[in-house]
Amino acid sequence: MHRRVLLEAVVADEFDVIVIGGGPAGENVVDRAVRGGLTAAIVEERLAGGECSYWACVPSKALLRPVDLAGEVARVPGLSLGEIDVAAVLARRDEAVKHFDDSGQVGWIEGVPAEFVRGHGRIDGTKTVRVTTEDGERVLTARQAVVLATGSTPVVPRVPGMAEANPWTNHEVTATASIPERLVVIGGGVVACEMAQAMHGLGARQTTVLVRGDGLLNRMEPFAGEMLAESFADAGIDVRFHAEADRIERPEPGGKVTVHLGAEPPLEADELLVATGRRAATSDLGLGTVGLPDGIVEVDDSMRATGVPGGWLYAVGDLNGRALLTHMGKYQARICGDVIAARARGDELPAMRDLADGYGAPQVIFTDPQICAVGRTERVAREAGFRVRVVDYDMGNVTGAYLLGEGYRGRARAIVDEDRKVLLGVTFVGPGAAELLHAATIAVTAEVPLDRLWHAVPSYPTVSEVWLRLLETYGL
Amino acid sequence: MHRRVLLEAVVADEFDVIVIGGGPAGENVVDRAVRGGLTAAIVEERLAGGECSYWACVPSKALLRPVDLAGEVARVPGLSLGEIDVAAVLARRDEAVKHFDDSGQVGWIEGVPAEFVRGHGRIDGTKTVRVTTEDGERVLTARQAVVLATGSTPVVPRVPGMAEANPWTNHEVTATASIPERLVVIGGGVVACEMAQAMHGLGARQTTVLVRGDGLLNRMEPFAGEMLAESFADAGIDVRFHAEADRIERPEPGGKVTVHLGAEPPLEADELLVATGRRAATSDLGLGTVGLPDGIVEVDDSMRATGVPGGWLYAVGDLNGRALLTHMGKYQARICGDVIAARARGDELPAMRDLADGYGAPQVIFTDPQICAVGRTERVAREAGFRVRVVDYDMGNVTGAYLLGEGYRGRARAIVDEDRKVLLGVTFVGPGAAELLHAATIAVTAEVPLDRLWHAVPSYPTVSEVWLRLLETYGL
Repeated sequence: MHRRVLLEAVVADEFDVIVIGGGPAGENVVDRAVRGGLTAAIVEERLAGGECSYWACVPSKALLRPVDLAGEVARVPGLSLGEIDVAAVLARRDEAVKHFDDSGQVGWIEGVPAEFVRGHGRIDGTKTVRVTTEDGERVLTARQAVVLATGSTPVVPRVPGMAEANPWTNHEVTATASIPERLVVIGGGVVACEMAQAMHGLGARQTTVLVRGDGLLNRMEPFAGEMLAESFADAGIDVRFHAEADRIERPEPGGKVTVHLGAEPPLEADELLVATGRRAATSDLGLGTVGLPDGIVEVDDSMRATGVPGGWLYAVGDLNGRALLTHMGKYQARICGDVIAARARGDELPAMRDLADGYGAPQVIFTDPQICAVGRTERVAREAGFRVRVVDYDMGNVTGAYLLGEGYRGRARAIVDEDRKVLLGVTFVGPGAAELLHAATIAVTAEVPLDRLWHAVPSYPTVSEVWLRLLETYGL
Repeated sequence: MHRRVLLEAVVADEFDVIVIGGGPAGENVVDRAVRGGLTAAIVEERLAGGECSYWACVPSKALLRPVDLAGEVARVPGLSLGEIDVAAVLARRDEAVKHFDDSGQVGWIEGVPAEFVRGHGRIDGTKTVRVTTEDGERVLTARQAVVLATGSTPVVPRVPGMAEANPWTNHEVTATASIPERLVVIGGGVVACEMAQAMHGLGARQTTVLVRGDGLLNRMEPFAGEMLAESFADAGIDVRFHAEADRIERPEPGGKVTVHLGAEPPLEADELLVATGRRAATSDLGLGTVGLPDGIVEVDDSMRATGVPGGWLYAVGDLNGRALLTHMGKYQARICGDVIAARARGDELPAMRDLADGYGAPQVIFTDPQICAVGRTERVAREAGFRVRVVDYDMGNVTGAYLLGEGYRGRARAIVDEDRKVLLGVTFVGPGAAELLHAATIAVTAEVPLDRLWHAVPSYPTVSEVWLRLLETYGL
């Protein structure tokens, strides 16, 4: 099978499906399309496995895990931890990112089997992909579909001196070989919060987070960012709201950096991390050759790009702007691969559409406390016109939480649709809360009625008993 | 409200509901019954809060938590733990059991409001409870119902010398003030496994577990006990199958104990823990006065005892033999309290029946690896006549598990009903698996179709991604 494809690759540059972008989303597209009987190629400029595997989810969690666990240990009487061995943590991170060697991932793609083409891919009109490789240019033709899965890139705000200061983005902070003593983080979203936590926990004694608005994680329920800000304050991370850098100075490359803050005294640091959002990675992607503007590629629920005659173009993952989350990109990719294969055989496979995004994508933030949510926040639910009841519960009152350690602080919120008596959204904030989320994701996505959830008995003494408390608080 | 009840108690010994047994189940009965407009009393011989709070779930988890966390730390490069401070662990355990002071629990009961009567209660004919208190005897009369919630007591097998050796049961091991150097555990169920793990982790260097059968945890999927046995072996806990003590010697009370094992060399230890099951606590409960035999009190799905004319007797928790689990006792108690209140006002409240037990009660075992399951095992499902497909997945292959530490070993199993395409049961084995269970409990109890579960996207990189892997392995 494998050998056949390799031979074919020499002689033919035509595939049923061509995917530009070899991150988790692109990989899942070819996996499903090939399973559906099609041939496929992936074009990737950097490393197979994508942003997530080398510069985002994976290394960030490898850096956060020891910090998180150290926090848990500190709450358990009888345990005492030595200093964190940062070199060992960084070595484990290096192992997690495979030392930036993607041969394992390339092997996986070839085993699908699909062809892996390393180079910069761009669309060049209908069903055509032009790839600039080390050896020159190659033109690939798609019989069925081209799928764009190039992801997103960090946005660096235009501030005088910023470009010259060459600040860290998620790329540099997750790949760092040492921990700066003094770090300034610009941003208040997930990357900013997670990396402030990781760097501080690994030795960035003076960590300052500059947030333009008045809260952290402002797409979550407000209490989530508030609890995280409290936790940061307790840990000695300096979070400043309504703070905006108006000038950056870094006279020596890689040297000290000074962040000017208007009337406030300037901040001096050893490194500057910018995490102020991401934009669709459409640079030199050739969207104009098929009449699409640059920026987010709009898609329907089957992941097909809207406004492209013939319907042969698809986009999955960050690029389509639905949800900048690896698991949602993979989910979209499974749908996309199945749909393309079904359409190739004249089927529509209507069951295979993006439903999850409509409910509200699940997300976990690996700070201390961990924060996770699925579905709609109270605000979003009310704005959508639902008749809503909000149910809050202090997770520290659950016996299972008490048994995890001293001073457990956590909170859960359920958003109930009062007309249908189902959950519209759930948020958990607390140490170790990450694995609590999937129960909520099932309840929200399957619209399990509350009076049925009542019979799903949480085991004692787990933290999951918060489910009972939420339902009791609701009045069941 | 509170004051009225206290005054009433002086002048009247008649209540709508009288509960014998003040553990979590009994407490939940009065809570729900009083919320339903009834008056109630709880009779408890020992401590309000019951077995679970002082001699089972709570202290056992307080002892296991530091051991469990030490295991997690050992898998994370860069972290190193000092010796466990056993005195601090025991002090935290003492705090968790409130130093055996139940005044907080009594206060909670009085605040319901319900009367707390300390003494030995027994039924004495229809709707009558006779209580032996410190001050003499008191006769209570129930207008609506008597609820039995006395729980269970450990069974100690009849082996020559066993009684004289005065072995530990769950009571003594969870309350211990020191850790024996050499411990023999008889039993292979939950208490035996959890306490072998806890004592070994806290310093019982020579821990030997004697199991009569050929596996641990034999109500679970077989791989659960097998993985635990491997983990015990790796940790140096000596597990012996087909091992039965035939004579115990302990010449000095509290001194060395020798366990004779037929042809095998005898074992010498500092302490002996017996955890070979539990029986319904019906000793001197007066069941005979209403025509019931001693032992388990059979109930219908509304928790009403079968075979008692007038239907005024109920039983919840371990005593009814449905599931020897605190959370199931509490669940039954909520049903029972609601049903009694409904019947008192001439309603049947048919929605309030025990459904969960029919699906298969959820259970978590806090060993390393943690083991949890809900619903039916493969064997039980096949015996019940379901057309079953078994889906297994190695949890170590999930990125979220890899990121938790090195050498993560875990396994998940889903039992699919091929006719209805719903889950009949799910088992997870792995470090930190406890909080994974509730998602399965919801999926099994709400009978969420697999093609709907497919849209419940697990967050990356959590261990919950095993849900995606199970569904992919199934073929979705």
